[in-house]
Amino acid sequence: MTREEARALDAADLLRPLRDRFHIPDGLISLDGNSLGVLPRATAARIAGVVADEWGTSLIRSWNDHDWIGAPQRVGAAIARLIGAAPHEVIVADSVTVNLFKLLTAAAPLGNGRGELLSEAGNFHTDLHVASGAAAATGLSLRVEPREAVGQAIGTDTNLLLLTHVHYKTGARFDMAAVTARTREAGARTIWDLSHSVGAVPLHLNRDGAEFAVGCGYKYLNGGPGAPAFLYVAEHLQDRVVPLLRGWMGHAAPFAFHDDYAPAAGIDRFLAGTPPILSLAGLEGGVASFDGVDMTDLWTKSVRLFDLFRTLAAERCPGLACISPADADARGSHISFRHPHAFELCQALIADNVIGDFRAPDVIRFGLTPLYLGFADVWEAVDRTARILDTGSWRDPRFAARGKVT
Amino acid sequence: MTREEARALDAADLLRPLRDRFHIPDGLISLDGNSLGVLPRATAARIAGVVADEWGTSLIRSWNDHDWIGAPQRVGAAIARLIGAAPHEVIVADSVTVNLFKLLTAAAPLGNGRGELLSEAGNFHTDLHVASGAAAATGLSLRVEPREAVGQAIGTDTNLLLLTHVHYKTGARFDMAAVTARTREAGARTIWDLSHSVGAVPLHLNRDGAEFAVGCGYKYLNGGPGAPAFLYVAEHLQDRVVPLLRGWMGHAAPFAFHDDYAPAAGIDRFLAGTPPILSLAGLEGGVASFDGVDMTDLWTKSVRLFDLFRTLAAERCPGLACISPADADARGSHISFRHPHAFELCQALIADNVIGDFRAPDVIRFGLTPLYLGFADVWEAVDRTARILDTGSWRDPRFAARGKVT
Repeated sequence: MTREEARALDAADLLRPLRDRFHIPDGLISLDGNSLGVLPRATAARIAGVVADEWGTSLIRSWNDHDWIGAPQRVGAAIARLIGAAPHEVIVADSVTVNLFKLLTAAAPLGNGRGELLSEAGNFHTDLHVASGAAAATGLSLRVEPREAVGQAIGTDTNLLLLTHVHYKTGARFDMAAVTARTREAGARTIWDLSHSVGAVPLHLNRDGAEFAVGCGYKYLNGGPGAPAFLYVAEHLQDRVVPLLRGWMGHAAPFAFHDDYAPAAGIDRFLAGTPPILSLAGLEGGVASFDGVDMTDLWTKSVRLFDLFRTLAAERCPGLACISPADADARGSHISFRHPHAFELCQALIADNVIGDFRAPDVIRFGLTPLYLGFADVWEAVDRTARILDTGSWRDPRFAARGKVT
Repeated sequence: MTREEARALDAADLLRPLRDRFHIPDGLISLDGNSLGVLPRATAARIAGVVADEWGTSLIRSWNDHDWIGAPQRVGAAIARLIGAAPHEVIVADSVTVNLFKLLTAAAPLGNGRGELLSEAGNFHTDLHVASGAAAATGLSLRVEPREAVGQAIGTDTNLLLLTHVHYKTGARFDMAAVTARTREAGARTIWDLSHSVGAVPLHLNRDGAEFAVGCGYKYLNGGPGAPAFLYVAEHLQDRVVPLLRGWMGHAAPFAFHDDYAPAAGIDRFLAGTPPILSLAGLEGGVASFDGVDMTDLWTKSVRLFDLFRTLAAERCPGLACISPADADARGSHISFRHPHAFELCQALIADNVIGDFRAPDVIRFGLTPLYLGFADVWEAVDRTARILDTGSWRDPRFAARGKVT
């Protein structure tokens, strides 16, 4: 395919106008929307309004007058549409890490004394770290097995299975319905981390029998750096679980100031402290960038972007080994490659206005975000990658320096 | 004192120019800075820059280029100056509730098997709720005693004492040095909630022997609605405590992606998920509104504002019973009154552009924030309160409607 052919695909793309919802810096190809989504154009004004009008002028009255108090539920309901859940099954709060802790420790007592919290080796590490703490808090033991052994490890000792739906590094995706069902048959429950799925792949949590999930607000949802996360609890379990990490916003009567804890009904009990209104406004804007968008259409385009990237890279970048599944049903919306100098390659690409990211020890990862990414972007990215590899320009010493964040 | 005399005090007040750092809505008297601090003028531009330039244009590169990654420590160090701590003893993260959970569960193992987590009846309820969950997570039992009995209750079973330094309702302040020392002598440790102290009363955590503390970012620190909170751990304990609620940002090597948890050195281990950059920018702006301000000067003015409020209210509002300590050393920076119709009075005052707040069942509370509040503001507030009480205008039915947030 030529550059012109890629441009023609963009011209014919019915989703192309969605790109105008976003601020794309001139000349930049952001293939990092799976790490930090770009800024929706409407968000700057939205946040400025929250700061100047709602905070600056209305002050404390905005808790009622601008429904700050309802933001966790309101934004949660908007996310619910994207993940195949009911509006009252999703709430926005805290971070993925904190929400995982809430769900793990709340769900453990459902397991009738079963002793194991099972997860995957090489899972995104915050999930494993929080699992180790949650296990200690609930008397479980954390068992971490290689991906291919997780299925076999589910047994009579399994209390909870913690899995990331789409793997942060390879992009490999679990079959949510099959894994959830298998775990339930074994008498255990699954907690899904949707951080690399939400806003990217079609999700049907209700249909697939998912009972617990968390997800990230600052990746595909375009909520801004460090945006709040969300959590999901299936309706039939909401009143059967009580968080160990609990606070006034999750109380049945937050403004009655009772000494004794009584969990709110439903999903609200998973709130803890005061909601972060400025960050929530960013997330609300990010989720609004999906308004009117059918997730199936988005996924269809993601598959085409992926296939183009993989085909072009195979032709032009023989040094890159694709580690993401070729089967669309078995992957997420990013494409990853191994290269012995992935770090330097990533830095050289950034210097050439193509932003991907590096994941230790030798992976370069490109997020494919159909809302604002086109076929010509993919063509350009592979073209520049090929030139960097062909010329060896990644060997420039300035690309070897590792900063605090790699 | 007449209105003119109050204005003369403002004219002579050396701190008066600080008011220009804030956006005060025309005609509004905000006596609610202990619930939501007003907007610092510089904050709107600061946040707009973070959104448009750092997020919108620099994208993921801002983690390094704009030191997003260092924000929790940087803002923590700025707060440290206000509370008498070393810069590396304070970090910004999550909410007060979540930080309390981290400290309670991390500190409990230091107690050599002692079984009680002690706190005060009528403490701000999120503290009691999170304490109940932290107790369950660590095998402690939560014991809640009336304020006057807490001292006697400290004994050989006490593991941790959780107290709010300045009481959210009455404003009564504990003697931090004395309580901390007494608890230590009994072989236990104190965790201080500074939510109603930080940015208000002089704090000397190091001098007073404080070992653990948390505090709120959206009250006197003017960080914006739901701003992140902070936590403090004295240097000598930092490497002796490990949080149960743990995540990648608190790992010794966050970007090495290790499966096994290893706590970061020092205060960093108390980070969990990705820092909320937009909200952190708000908090950084709020803390910057204290630049060059001596907390002793601020406190001296707070005492004068309080005394003026109390004296005028005693003269003109006989129906109000002041429940805040008259002794300045025994209180914080707000003044509270009981009134059988405190709710309606509060609503009537808001309609008259004086914002205080109601605390169930019968307390009206006014925050005294010397950075942006003057003597004439206090005079006006008492004058309008007196008129509302004298005329009985609080009986208007529209002031009786209770919304979701009271």
